[in-house]
Parts: sequence; C-alpha cells; structure tokens
Amino acid sequence: MIRTLSAALLLAASAPAASQTPPAPPVPVDPRVAALREAALHDQYAWEITEGLTTEVGQRLAGTEAEARARNWAVARLKALGFANVRVEPFDMPTWTRGPESAEILAPFPQKLVVAALGNSASTPPEGITGQVAGFDTLADLQAAPDSAVRGKIVFVSHAMPRTQDGSGYGYFGGPRRQGPTIASRKGAIAIVIRSIGTDYHRNPHTGVMSFADGVKPIPAGALPLPDAEQLQRILKRGRPVTMRLTLVSQAGQGRSGNVIAEVPGRDPSLAPVLVGGHLDSWDQGTGAIDDAAGVAIATAAAKRIRDSGRPLRTIRIVWFGAEEPGLLGGQDYMRKHKEPHWALAESDFGAGRIWRVTTKLGPERDEEAKAVQAALAPLGIVPGSREEADGSDIGPMIAAGAPAIGLSQDGTYYFDVHHTPDDTLDKVDPEALRQNVAAWTAMLAVLAGPIEPARKRP
Amino acid sequence: MIRTLSAALLLAASAPAASQTPPAPPVPVDPRVAALREAALHDQYAWEITEGLTTEVGQRLAGTEAEARARNWAVARLKALGFANVRVEPFDMPTWTRGPESAEILAPFPQKLVVAALGNSASTPPEGITGQVAGFDTLADLQAAPDSAVRGKIVFVSHAMPRTQDGSGYGYFGGPRRQGPTIASRKGAIAIVIRSIGTDYHRNPHTGVMSFADGVKPIPAGALPLPDAEQLQRILKRGRPVTMRLTLVSQAGQGRSGNVIAEVPGRDPSLAPVLVGGHLDSWDQGTGAIDDAAGVAIATAAAKRIRDSGRPLRTIRIVWFGAEEPGLLGGQDYMRKHKEPHWALAESDFGAGRIWRVTTKLGPERDEEAKAVQAALAPLGIVPGSREEADGSDIGPMIAAGAPAIGLSQDGTYYFDVHHTPDDTLDKVDPEALRQNVAAWTAMLAVLAGPIEPARKRP
Repeated sequence: MIRTLSAALLLAASAPAASQTPPAPPVPVDPRVAALREAALHDQYAWEITEGLTTEVGQRLAGTEAEARARNWAVARLKALGFANVRVEPFDMPTWTRGPESAEILAPFPQKLVVAALGNSASTPPEGITGQVAGFDTLADLQAAPDSAVRGKIVFVSHAMPRTQDGSGYGYFGGPRRQGPTIASRKGAIAIVIRSIGTDYHRNPHTGVMSFADGVKPIPAGALPLPDAEQLQRILKRGRPVTMRLTLVSQAGQGRSGNVIAEVPGRDPSLAPVLVGGHLDSWDQGTGAIDDAAGVAIATAAAKRIRDSGRPLRTIRIVWFGAEEPGLLGGQDYMRKHKEPHWALAESDFGAGRIWRVTTKLGPERDEEAKAVQAALAPLGIVPGSREEADGSDIGPMIAAGAPAIGLSQDGTYYFDVHHTPDDTLDKVDPEALRQNVAAWTAMLAVLAGPIEPARKRP
Repeated sequence: MIRTLSAALLLAASAPAASQTPPAPPVPVDPRVAALREAALHDQYAWEITEGLTTEVGQRLAGTEAEARARNWAVARLKALGFANVRVEPFDMPTWTRGPESAEILAPFPQKLVVAALGNSASTPPEGITGQVAGFDTLADLQAAPDSAVRGKIVFVSHAMPRTQDGSGYGYFGGPRRQGPTIASRKGAIAIVIRSIGTDYHRNPHTGVMSFADGVKPIPAGALPLPDAEQLQRILKRGRPVTMRLTLVSQAGQGRSGNVIAEVPGRDPSLAPVLVGGHLDSWDQGTGAIDDAAGVAIATAAAKRIRDSGRPLRTIRIVWFGAEEPGLLGGQDYMRKHKEPHWALAESDFGAGRIWRVTTKLGPERDEEAKAVQAALAPLGIVPGSREEADGSDIGPMIAAGAPAIGLSQDGTYYFDVHHTPDDTLDKVDPEALRQNVAAWTAMLAVLAGPIEPARKRP
C-alpha cells in the first residue's frame, strides 16, 4: 500500500518533466554513499534501540523519574555503541502527571465512557465533577455559541480529522485540543472533553499537550476515544439532557529533564556539525515506540553506520531531546545553549513508517548538495520535495531562526491511529520500514557529513 | 476480501462435482422466498436494534441492573415492532462483577501493564498481591512444570491463537483461559495472567468466563492484551527475576437474569415453532455490539420482515437469551422450561461479519428442506456446508439433545480482534454485512416457517 503510494507519487513528480522539458541529467551518486545506503537496508541497530528502550524503560514522561531512567539507559547505550562525547545537558521544567480518571453518563442512559486527561488539564476533585453536557460538532460551533449555552456545563467538542499521508490533518483539525479548553473556560464551562485527535476506532484515548491562554482559568480537559465520542454524539442526538460525571485527577509540579548528546567526531573539528535526533521522552500510557523511540533509533543507527565505516569530514551530533511532548522544552534548551552554527538539522519524529519524500532547506547556494541528497535517496522510493522548506519538532525553533535543515517525510497515513495513546507499543513498528528509514538517514548523512575516509586498521 | 474468500470456497465446493459427476439439477427457489431475500438487502431494522441497544443501554453484564434495563428495552422494542406474546422468563443466577484492576512490573524494569480479570476470577485484596512471575510459552509447558517452579508465584501463560474464518482457533487455543487457572492453582500459584485469547494488537484485554474445577482453590486470574503479553515475554527473556504487583478486585453475588421471548404466530399453532435468537447480555467493558446486539438484531429483523409480509405456516419464536456469557445460563433455563419440540433452532452469536456458509442438522428425512435452504441462500454468496451438523451457543445443549438446527456461519476472521474487549462497540458493525445477514436469515425463515400467506388487507 505504502509502496504503491510512493510509486504513484514518483510517477506524478516525474511525468510533467518528461512531457514538458527534457529530463535533467541524473545527479551522480558517490558509490560509497550508495554502498552505505544498501548495507543499511539490513540494519539491526535501530530495532535493538527501539526494542531495548521500550522494553527496559517503557513509558518515560517528561520530567519524571522514568525519563531520568531513560536518560541513564541512553547514556549507557550510546557509550556502548562507541560514540564520543556522550553527555547529558540537564534542565528544569514544570511537570504534569496523570492520576485516576473516568467518565460516566449518569442520565439518560447510564454508562461508562473511556477518557484521558490532556496534558496540563486542571485536576478535578477525587470524586469528580458532575454537569450537563453541551455538545458542539466543531470548534467553530463552540466559538459561536453564546456563553449561556456553556456556562456551568461540561463542553463536548467533536471534529473530523481525516487520514493524511503527511500529517497535515493534525494541523488543520487539532484545534479542539489546542484552543478548545481556553474557549470553553472563557465561556464559563466547568470542564471540556473532546473527540480524540486521532483516526482509529479503539477505546484508547489520544492525549497530548494543551495550554490555557494567559489569564484564563484552567479547567479539567480530557479526550474521549472515537467510539466513545460517537456514542456521546448519538446520546446527545436523542435530545434529552445528558449528565456526565467526570474525574480527571492530575498533579502539577517541578522536575528535571535533559538532552542526551553523543558525537561521531569529524576529521575537521572546525566545520559546523550535522545534527540528527529525535526525542527521548514519551507520553505516559504507551511505551513511546513510534513516538519517539523509533525516531532516536533511526537517527542513531544511521550515525552508528557512518561511524563504523570510517571518519566523516564533519562531526555528526546525535541529540535525544528531553521533554518534547510538553512543548519542545528540550529543543528550546538546546537552542539556548548552542549558538554555534550547524551544517544541517534533521529530526525523526513522525513514527516509523516508510520515508516517501525528502525536503531540504539548505539555502540557494547549496542547491547542488540538496540535489545530491535527493539523488542518493531516490533508489529507496523517496521522491524529491521542496528545496525551500524542512521541518522538525525540537529543531523547529532553530529552523525558524534560519538554521539549514533536512526533512525525511515518513508516511503518516496510520500515525494518528496510535499517536499519544496506550497503543503506542513496539508491535506497531514494522522492522522493514524501520530499515528503509535507516538507509535513508545513512545516505543523507553520508552526503552531508562526508566524504567518509576509511578508518585505518588498528595494529 | 470476505467476498473473495466466499467465491473461492464456492468454486472449491462445486469443482469436484463438475469434474466427476454431472451437476445436480438446481433446486428451485420459491419466488416469494427470493423476493423476501432481495428486499432484506435493504433492511434497516437490524441496524436500528443494534444502534439502539448499544446506545441506550450500553454494556449489560449478566445478572446486573444493566441487564435488567436491557430486558426492559427489549420488551418495549419487540412490542413496538408488533410481535406477539412478548414476555420475560426470569431466572436467578450467581453474579460476578469487576472492581479496580491493574498490573505493574516492579522489577527489573518498572512499568505498568494493562490487565482485565477473567470472569469468576478470585479477588485480590484492594492493595493487590505481589509475586515473582513464572512464565510459560504454552499451557502444556505449565502442565509439565514441577510444582516447585510455580508455587507462590504469579503464573504467566502465553499461546498463539491464529486467525481463522470459522473461529476454530478459539476452541484449539482457548485452553490458557479455560484450564490455565485450575492448573496453576493446583500447582500452588498465587495468581495467573494469560495472553488474551485474541488476535489484535491493541491495549484492550480480552475477558471471558472460566471456572475452577471442583475442589480447586480459586485464585485471581487475568488477561493481558497482546502488546502487554509480548512485553512481559521480552522482559522475562532478559533472564532476571521479574516481580509483578497484580490487583484484580471483583465481587461474587446473586442476581436475576431472564430470557426475552416474542413470537410471530403461525397459521397452524399445532406445528412446532422455528426458534431464532441471540443473546441479550454482554461483557462489561464494551457495549456488546458484535457480541451480541448484532445477533439479536439480525434474528429479530428477519422475523419482523416475515411478519410484515404475511403469515407464516409455523410460529417463529424469537429468543433474546439472558446470561449467555457466564455459561449459557439463558439457554439452559429455556431448555428446562420448554420441553416442546422445535422445527429448527438457529442462533446468531459470532459477530456481524458476512455469512459465508450454511450448515444444517435437520435429519435425513428432511434433506430436501435442507437443500432448499442452501439453494435459497446461494445467491448471497453463501456456500453449502455440512447437512449433518449445526451449532450455536445457547441452543447448543438443545442441539446436543437432538433438536434440529441451522447454522449460518459468519466470517470470523476479525471477530477475535474485538471479542470480549472494550473495543466491542457499534463502529465495528458494517451495515452492509449486517444487511446480508438479515437477507440470509429472512430467506432461511421463509423456507423453514413458510409458506407465507399474504396478510389480508384490513378494512
């Protein structure tokens, strides 16, 4: 399925060129890059890191003792893999942790629903709160409602996020989570529950961070799985008043996180490094396999393969960011501490699906280098995307500030089935797709950090 | 997919006949039967019943107040549909209800797992019990283990149930749930957790009933979802002692259930009735959509369509059995109270997938009738199965005692993804497959209870 899509997109991309202009001469690919790429299709490092981190640590919520254990695990593993300059750059942060939670329709049709608090939700008392449900099909409907329709009630907002290959639906339809709580609180709601920002029909709610606008009173905010959200819609459609008891206990506090950093030293330390990474923290209900154990694993496996093949011209810096989920705290801390220029930034944080596209933002003066990356990835079924933009989560602020970057776009068609749910577990990672990712990252690194000089045999 | 399978099976069934013997002359199908079957492909009754019961009642665990609400709902709906002799036949029963439950690995890799108690599990204290985990890949391995390997420990049993179209894997591989607790208790285990008897990789455990053999001390018994069971296997494989805290609080008591019965009176009340049904109760974590709201809905919609088309020769008796899940209690109560002969029994209790096969057990003297049923269903892509056996859950004991029966086999390839889990919700029912079911049941009833005499217009 994914292969078919990639193939179709490749045809679509090349067809206009073929019919309108003579095809561009192929960009030659350094045989050493090609050899590294092909060897990486048999990679085991990424699977071992993903399996190890999710099994031996499991969930690792930002700022908690579990994330600290994950950092220890990361330091030990990165050292064992032979990387240099392995270190933690710690930072303090506010924490939010989940307590008991439940939702129950008391009338007209008594029954339990599944619910999970959104990150930064206010806490209910342990016995919960009870209120009438005011339902809205969209965030715009809630926005348009008079305060009197909401005041003293529990707001429910539905929406309809479609599947998309590139994840763009998350931007378009994530509003109920991101803005819904603030809007509901401003109108006097006592709480809000939203339809999960997700695409699957399992009883596993999608959590995720939200924050209240300045001056807005925090209220309890939760997400219902899609089956429960549609059940509530059906109940509301019967037209009788619907009463819900909602328990979302949580605790706010202070904690410590940190970025774990390791390097493959380049032959010329005066050159700007290439930064690759993902984030170490996860949400608290799954084991963070696709978000983002796979991401750190892919970037690290690629760097490991370069390291073992010789010495790159430029230093490769691997960063396992801490506390991405609560709002890119690791990325922000890194940016504060590292004013030095980077040759390129790349982050893997969109699951473990096959890579279908490469985008670059290296600047017009490096267009040949961007084309060399595109050419090196083409044999993996990866189509050329924009050469004027690239994105990433933790690295986003640095890209916005002008740093060069590469985006290796994973197929996200099924990403939001699992994203931020208890279902984010190792079984969701396809080992073959993972290897395709490692091959792409290895080839990308071989171009950007290369050329690689064969290691001298040790005596 | 399902259509392809059915077509393949149909070819397989007809090929030997075509190559070895001249094809049997086609069995003629009464045009009134064909017309009813085709009209039923546009059925709405089954969807309305499934949607209504799952929305307005939700879960309806046997013997509880929720099942009593479901009976009230059923009586009102069956009367509203115009059936005759709508009534409840109540019976008393032991109940088992779920309390708080959790599982946590304390060492070597602290993390929470998802767990659900099996029906009739003993209760742990509210604070849970703690023990070392003794893991076994199969029930045979547990059986073969010396008591010393198990005594004082929490047993974990894995297994490997494959998907099957006909559900036969449930029989072959359900042992860990059915016999596992007894074997573990006999060997001195303090509790047992099993890999869910299911085929999906979601964090939703599969519950289900089990019972301890006579004289065996009940112990707490739970099921882990597949992702958690495989996580525990990976942790055990590291070779270090694994400690688990297990909380499975539950309560045993006494309650009341009942069978809800309704009829379409036949023109000749002296003739034995045709019984069709499903079960009203459900497990407690989903809304019992495929198990078994869809089942009662399919049987009832077919009877409704016959009723509205005229008067059948034989009475059609619809039974919504109570308390099937704890062990066919409704079927047993019905059998005790109804010694009268039945012309045929049929129960829909294997989800809402398309019907791919019909089996019959009407006896050698009614072979023409069996072939007429096969012929009437063939245009729906339903292949002829055995004419010497048929099965059903509540009706199973009556079939075993010699009652004639029909089996309309639903495709169960995906049934055990959802069976007995929180995921058994309305969205799992495909309305088109549901209509194919109703068409099959309508045609079957039209043959067995017919001929149907057009209703006289009322003045």
